[in-house]
Amino acid sequence: MMNICVAQSGGPTCAINASLVGVFKESLKKPEIDAIFGSVNGIEGVIENHLIDMKTIIRTNDDIELLRQTPSTVLGSCRYKLPDWREDDTIYKKIADTLIQRQIGAFFYIGGNDSMDTVNKLSDYFREISIDIKIIGIPKTIDNDLCITDHTPGFGSAAKYVATTMHEIIRDSSVYSMPSVTIVEIMGRHAGWLTASSAVLHALGETAPHLVYVPEREFSLEKFIKDVRHEMAKHKAVIVAVSEGMEVPEGVQSGVVDNFGHKYLSGIGKYLEESVRSEIGCKVRSIELNVMQRCSSHICSRTDIDESELIGAEGVKHALAGETGKVMVFRRISSMPYTVIVETADACQIANKEKFLPAEFITASGNNISRCAMEYFLPLIQGELNIIMDRGIPKHFTIKESVLK
Amino acid sequence: MMNICVAQSGGPTCAINASLVGVFKESLKKPEIDAIFGSVNGIEGVIENHLIDMKTIIRTNDDIELLRQTPSTVLGSCRYKLPDWREDDTIYKKIADTLIQRQIGAFFYIGGNDSMDTVNKLSDYFREISIDIKIIGIPKTIDNDLCITDHTPGFGSAAKYVATTMHEIIRDSSVYSMPSVTIVEIMGRHAGWLTASSAVLHALGETAPHLVYVPEREFSLEKFIKDVRHEMAKHKAVIVAVSEGMEVPEGVQSGVVDNFGHKYLSGIGKYLEESVRSEIGCKVRSIELNVMQRCSSHICSRTDIDESELIGAEGVKHALAGETGKVMVFRRISSMPYTVIVETADACQIANKEKFLPAEFITASGNNISRCAMEYFLPLIQGELNIIMDRGIPKHFTIKESVLK
Repeated sequence: MMNICVAQSGGPTCAINASLVGVFKESLKKPEIDAIFGSVNGIEGVIENHLIDMKTIIRTNDDIELLRQTPSTVLGSCRYKLPDWREDDTIYKKIADTLIQRQIGAFFYIGGNDSMDTVNKLSDYFREISIDIKIIGIPKTIDNDLCITDHTPGFGSAAKYVATTMHEIIRDSSVYSMPSVTIVEIMGRHAGWLTASSAVLHALGETAPHLVYVPEREFSLEKFIKDVRHEMAKHKAVIVAVSEGMEVPEGVQSGVVDNFGHKYLSGIGKYLEESVRSEIGCKVRSIELNVMQRCSSHICSRTDIDESELIGAEGVKHALAGETGKVMVFRRISSMPYTVIVETADACQIANKEKFLPAEFITASGNNISRCAMEYFLPLIQGELNIIMDRGIPKHFTIKESVLK
Repeated sequence: MMNICVAQSGGPTCAINASLVGVFKESLKKPEIDAIFGSVNGIEGVIENHLIDMKTIIRTNDDIELLRQTPSTVLGSCRYKLPDWREDDTIYKKIADTLIQRQIGAFFYIGGNDSMDTVNKLSDYFREISIDIKIIGIPKTIDNDLCITDHTPGFGSAAKYVATTMHEIIRDSSVYSMPSVTIVEIMGRHAGWLTASSAVLHALGETAPHLVYVPEREFSLEKFIKDVRHEMAKHKAVIVAVSEGMEVPEGVQSGVVDNFGHKYLSGIGKYLEESVRSEIGCKVRSIELNVMQRCSSHICSRTDIDESELIGAEGVKHALAGETGKVMVFRRISSMPYTVIVETADACQIANKEKFLPAEFITASGNNISRCAMEYFLPLIQGELNIIMDRGIPKHFTIKESVLK
């Protein structure tokens, strides 16, 4: 008999709690697993021995359904980067103390790029000091920028939100008779996956977004203004999707001044809006999809939620089969019909690495997404949950603040 | 036999097309109505004699269902302010020409405050020149700031989006162990209805939003910082809702003015974010819900959509009964069970006037919404549509650009 521990880390998504459900439900099924601990605020909870008994938290099938439709991390999160244990193992000893004291045989870390670094380092450390605790990474990120895996849990829901909202913004932006430009700023620091997903609307027959700029291609303001003018000749309302990670020239400021006379720094969307206003002079608006991209569970992808639960459950199976220092990944067998299998990869192959849009997903002109990308994106956004409502609002599963303190 | 004409005007909402459906379906039922014309881009289409035969556009029950779930204005919109006809009747003559030539017996204008000004002036003009064309206003605005009517079509869906999104932002903002402040900027130029609607989450047991600022109360930055500090002592993640229309120091507003002399507002959220950063120095973020507030049909309120269709249909009945210069309004009979009836009011009582939050909806401290407001807001956000999807994305009804040109 052993206990297990699960933690959530990094930026929120709609699917992290579904992976927690996967770990929890699979662990319940396994006779060799006794207590299921949840660590509060990611690895910080393990360091501080702040674990909670998940069986006292998740009590009913309704709880499970609610947790599947609740965005963000019910156990809290952290952005904690472990040092190299060869240089300083103080924190590692604290982690080992907690895990040994709680008789943890396997630790599941649901997180992104940085969390897979933790999986890699921790499993190395435990191997080195010959302690048999399995460390398994369950990936998640709306950025979809992890290597090896076909896609990441959380991405499909974010992509469905982005495409749905882009569709609605197209309707909203197209009502007046005068020409206009609408710029939608979408998350993604270095990789353009989420921005590119807005182009799935082309599969529905929409001409918009008419221009899509991703960080994988160099950006030129001169070329951008030329592109916009070109599209304005064809369309009354031009819609542009742009990754937040596009490189903006030094010192770009919105021109708005605060009390103290400081100019506000602003993002790429605002910058391009100002550029269109000054260079072209037409009606122009920029919209930042902001955190709604990663937390709009009310329009999550059922495919994403189901897969996120599955990949959590598979993690438990692989830990019990003796694997450690692994990250669970999806391999796509086919797009039509859509079929994926869950495998493992070495954490060191995924930690601190990024995956970018394939060159063929971007048009030759560098300002839009190719039709061939549709086959990749569309299966990931299919299906909806039957959202449980409370007084007209999607209901969430939460843990009392007093328990998390 | 006569024909009728319907047009859509002002800023988009999720419910304007439902009101169009109401006018269309009710007109189909009436033996005295022959052609149903739609005017492209509001009153501009009438001025330019750019009308389309709606029976060639809306052909099936599926079309109707799709139109009900499509945000914005399928016929396009305008922000056209009619001059005083006593001073200059050139435009009025053009409008009369079109309506007479097309044998229009009744004109239905779906729009906000400014559109009701058009209803008022047009009906006055036609009375004056003794032309028997009925002019009926069908209200819509997410701002909910029209007088006399209990609430406006479009508001319930916007409120449902705001409350749902605020709920998700609360989850998103509460994951880290460090203290933080999240400021959510919500639409509303002079009236705080939509911002206040975010407080319905209190009825679900949420303590957030912890602070709600509406334009009905004077705003002081000093008091705001004090309020935030006070809430930070109680909550790790403080959530603030603020109306875009809060009066802020000079220079924060963009200064751009629309046809009606309204200033385009932006920046209160960013301004408060910078203030918290410089005064308190904690983690702080501002989020602008932007146009998503008015076009997120995928999470529209079924109550709102059904009522918006109903009020359009009632408009047709009242026109046929001989009324003109009227705006259709809701009168609430009871909140529990929720019951409204549709009546008419004189357009002159509604045009160019605004309705503000009742004093008792705002707490004595002026920084939150009272529990007594829940009874008003909650019925308006109940129910969802069974959204028809296409490849994982809510499907929209659109009219070919070539037809609208």
